Amino acid sequence: MINMEAQKSFRFSFQFYHLLLILLLQSILSNSVLAIPHKIPRLTPHRETLTRRDPNKILSASAISDDFITLFYTQTIDHFNYGPQSYATFQQRYVINFKYWGGSNSPIFAYLGAEEQIDFDLQSIGFLSANARHFSALQVYIEHRYYGESIPFGTMEQAMNDISTRGYFNSAQAIADYAEVLIHIKDKFSAQNSPIIVFGGSYGGMLATWFRLKYPHIALGALASSAPILYFDNITPQNGYYSIVTKDFKEASKSCYETIRRSWAEIDKIASMQYGLSYLGNKFKICGPLHSPQELKGYLESIYTAAAQYNAPPEYPVSMICSAIDGEPTGTDILGRIFAGVNSYKKSYPCYHINDYSYQSESSLGWTWQTCSEMVMPLGRGINDTMFPPSPFNLDQFIKDCKSTYGVPPRPHWVTTYYGGHDIKLILRRFGSNIIFSNGLRDPYSSGGVLEDISQSILAVSTVNGSHCLDVLLPDQSDPSWLVEQRNKEIEIIDVWIAKYYADLLV
Amino acid sequence: MINMEAQKSFRFSFQFYHLLLILLLQSILSNSVLAIPHKIPRLTPHRETLTRRDPNKILSASAISDDFITLFYTQTIDHFNYGPQSYATFQQRYVINFKYWGGSNSPIFAYLGAEEQIDFDLQSIGFLSANARHFSALQVYIEHRYYGESIPFGTMEQAMNDISTRGYFNSAQAIADYAEVLIHIKDKFSAQNSPIIVFGGSYGGMLATWFRLKYPHIALGALASSAPILYFDNITPQNGYYSIVTKDFKEASKSCYETIRRSWAEIDKIASMQYGLSYLGNKFKICGPLHSPQELKGYLESIYTAAAQYNAPPEYPVSMICSAIDGEPTGTDILGRIFAGVNSYKKSYPCYHINDYSYQSESSLGWTWQTCSEMVMPLGRGINDTMFPPSPFNLDQFIKDCKSTYGVPPRPHWVTTYYGGHDIKLILRRFGSNIIFSNGLRDPYSSGGVLEDISQSILAVSTVNGSHCLDVLLPDQSDPSWLVEQRNKEIEIIDVWIAKYYADLLV
Repeated sequence: MINMEAQKSFRFSFQFYHLLLILLLQSILSNSVLAIPHKIPRLTPHRETLTRRDPNKILSASAISDDFITLFYTQTIDHFNYGPQSYATFQQRYVINFKYWGGSNSPIFAYLGAEEQIDFDLQSIGFLSANARHFSALQVYIEHRYYGESIPFGTMEQAMNDISTRGYFNSAQAIADYAEVLIHIKDKFSAQNSPIIVFGGSYGGMLATWFRLKYPHIALGALASSAPILYFDNITPQNGYYSIVTKDFKEASKSCYETIRRSWAEIDKIASMQYGLSYLGNKFKICGPLHSPQELKGYLESIYTAAAQYNAPPEYPVSMICSAIDGEPTGTDILGRIFAGVNSYKKSYPCYHINDYSYQSESSLGWTWQTCSEMVMPLGRGINDTMFPPSPFNLDQFIKDCKSTYGVPPRPHWVTTYYGGHDIKLILRRFGSNIIFSNGLRDPYSSGGVLEDISQSILAVSTVNGSHCLDVLLPDQSDPSWLVEQRNKEIEIIDVWIAKYYADLLV
Repeated sequence: MINMEAQKSFRFSFQFYHLLLILLLQSILSNSVLAIPHKIPRLTPHRETLTRRDPNKILSASAISDDFITLFYTQTIDHFNYGPQSYATFQQRYVINFKYWGGSNSPIFAYLGAEEQIDFDLQSIGFLSANARHFSALQVYIEHRYYGESIPFGTMEQAMNDISTRGYFNSAQAIADYAEVLIHIKDKFSAQNSPIIVFGGSYGGMLATWFRLKYPHIALGALASSAPILYFDNITPQNGYYSIVTKDFKEASKSCYETIRRSWAEIDKIASMQYGLSYLGNKFKICGPLHSPQELKGYLESIYTAAAQYNAPPEYPVSMICSAIDGEPTGTDILGRIFAGVNSYKKSYPCYHINDYSYQSESSLGWTWQTCSEMVMPLGRGINDTMFPPSPFNLDQFIKDCKSTYGVPPRPHWVTTYYGGHDIKLILRRFGSNIIFSNGLRDPYSSGGVLEDISQSILAVSTVNGSHCLDVLLPDQSDPSWLVEQRNKEIEIIDVWIAKYYADLLV
């Protein structure tokens, strides 16, 4: 088992790793500070420089207990084509843990990897290991193609630099991979009658939902944590995400919200003055020169959105930032308050890197491609409908930018064509079963989530105070009761699915 | 509307067209007379030479009424890849008939094309046009990629001769095509709330089933006629198909069955004699020389299986053959009786072509590829478990042969991986809805069909005396009451689906 104490600190790392992703995604989607990179940047190993991850607290791969066994499956590169190039294979990594498995008909819990290497999930996703004993479940964690050690065509750089080889990098191929791996595991361990429950968070939660819908003969049920499956096409209003960030800050403190809302014009005003940019750069302790007010505004925006998305106990970053903003002495100007907020969040760095173009993590590299090809999520905002400056999502421009970066345009309607999403209550009311959509309503992505029960077994489990993917992280002594209850409810629902399945087996 | 009188004669053509396919399929699968062609043969326009279709009775395309409008959709060649080659497009043909459509929320009936050009379906599939008025339904008939006028990469010959271009020719791509076309039609005709029911027969019935399961957000329900969705892997016994052929003949006449059963050894015996082959060739009026007893046996086998599969009223070919076999004067030898059976079935030809290698229809060309790549249906038979000589399905040999023909091996387990099939009652009991599996129990393919209700809305509608796809053909005055009842039951079930859907719309 993973060391529980070490785990605790990793919830932090996990959150900040995700923060990186959201930063990048937002910058792309809002067409603001960071333009879509017009070259696929090189991979560099400087992950830690962009996070506040404490290197002393990183759980090394070797520290994960021997109960986790790493295996590889020879995976088909293209499940939907029979041309000779489709038969190429790659080694797909999966990690398996038998410790609590009851063998034979006992359940298999499968975590479907998302846009990161599977090691990170082993270090942070706790739902499976915390409940494996209760369910006598085999644990399986499968890495998503093109991440970690499951990269076809050599290195990530090689895979991503070729306009043809990166074409196989999409969700339909990924869930077909999961289907093959899970069938292989059932065969290998003579577990034909073991019910499989799939788990995933965020993009991985979408994959879990879609896997249950597309492969019901493989997965009996799915727990989809913080999966914004409705943030496609025009199903969710563009400003859903930023509206919730805004609401989070407003609820934490009306005056904090007002300060932030008024800060953008203040930045523009100062930036337009002589030496204004230099003044702002100093004031916000930016490492290196500040090039434009947009750069600073994008940086601040990324802090607020990350704080809202990962507004988790016990720290609750939104409250932390607002306490600092509100806590400055009377007479402190707006930007003085904003800096105090940033400082409380960023803590002890001597200066802050706000735009390190030289670095792109494997995850951001992969996810940028995914959002620019298939996973087109229209996040934007209008005039005065959030606490942020306007930044509407412009699909035409987005398509143009992606095409200029990658040579091929995205297919913005494919997700709803293949997986659905429109009229989901009407569609799934009498079709499908056994999906839990869990959300924390303070998570900006919950705006694109399923928040109401659809049928007797397609259920929404939301928490008013929850943030992104909290329920699937490792439980902790300090967890608030609403989080404990959310998890217990999920366990009860899965218990019912499995009991019914065993009863059906006897029919 | 299609002329009803003309239609009647086309049921015949339809059946014989299908006969061609089954001939080819069987010859491949049984590794008997016809080996897998080791070269992709050229297309030739001699379709009629291999059927008993009366050219005077062929409904020309121009004779189909003006109510049928032919349109084309610019279709994506590869839905599951984002490499530049995936963005190639082709023109996919579909035919639409508004005559009875109620507009706005009224239903859309979509016939999903299978392994033939869509014209043939317009000439033979009658369920949609016969019931469009009752349902106020829009009729849509969509052609399957790589058939008819929906061939990517130029001609069928060009498409099939290239090892890369034919890779896109598979069912997952085909049903994704249907998804795009149907969404396009809904958009184009402002029919967002129109429930879509999909229809298909045989392979097309499998597509209809799978479409409902994979795209429930597009199709509300499916009528899958004679769809052997369980004839994959080892779900259905290999000899299921030939066992039913045998049963059909045995039930028609025990003595007829015995005559056939004993005929194979008789053929072998005579063939081994001096001039035996020549004698057999003359006896069976074979055009050109007979090369081996296997050739004759394969030819006879194909007649018996086609007669059983298309054992439709009013002719009932199995009874017809058996009457002829049994009707010969006392003292007629076995082969004399067998020839009388053949003659009654084949009717007036001066001599019979039993192996025309120079000709391959587009359908047989396409379907051979499909069965050699994805649709691997293990039809075989053992020693004395049918009225036929043994011919077990040997998967290893089959893979070897396909690989040697096409350069790539088939993926024999992909259908069950992607679509399921194993434990179907367990899986679909609590998942999915609104599928009718219709079968005629005299149809040898019913052995791989769903013959029991799975849930309240996944239903089996079988007829004891029915044959292949009878229910979806155009109704006729002479139809027996059990066939009329089968169709009425299907209509009632679809009525219920649609009524529930409209009620749900108001919730």
